[in-house]
Amino acid sequence: MEWIEYVGYVGVVLSSITFMPQVMHAWKTKSVGDLSIWMVLILIGNVSTWLLYAVVKDVLPMIIANSIILVLSFVMLYFKLTFKK
Amino acid sequence: MEWIEYVGYVGVVLSSITFMPQVMHAWKTKSVGDLSIWMVLILIGNVSTWLLYAVVKDVLPMIIANSIILVLSFVMLYFKLTFKK
Repeated sequence: MEWIEYVGYVGVVLSSITFMPQVMHAWKTKSVGDLSIWMVLILIGNVSTWLLYAVVKDVLPMIIANSIILVLSFVMLYFKLTFKK
Repeated sequence: MEWIEYVGYVGVVLSSITFMPQVMHAWKTKSVGDLSIWMVLILIGNVSTWLLYAVVKDVLPMIIANSIILVLSFVMLYFKLTFKK
């Protein structure tokens, strides 16, 4: 495996965990007023698109990463719609 | 061009614009307390990694998208460090 492929795997791991701190932050504070709902909605569209791409192209790391991000973005949407502030 | 390549281009456009509403929201409200700084920092690492990957692999749409997201994530970091709340 070439070195750049390892860089790709680092990218996959970092992509997968990017929104975990945001979900934990929102869960702890129960406050999401500063989160843009448009960011969350576009993120869901963005990640759904890449998930479709990854499934058709059969790229497993990309399927896993985008599935994780999709779940996290739906959790953020749920928080955004249910927390009062 | 196969249909799935068009899906990829939609993904590139959606990825590029994902954080624009968040930057505008933060700029308008001057409030970023609910944004996780760890999300922003991991996003910077994530996007820098993909930018390196895209440059080495010479994938222009991926270079453009990741450059845009990198600029937006540094703007979010700047807001996070300078706005008081």
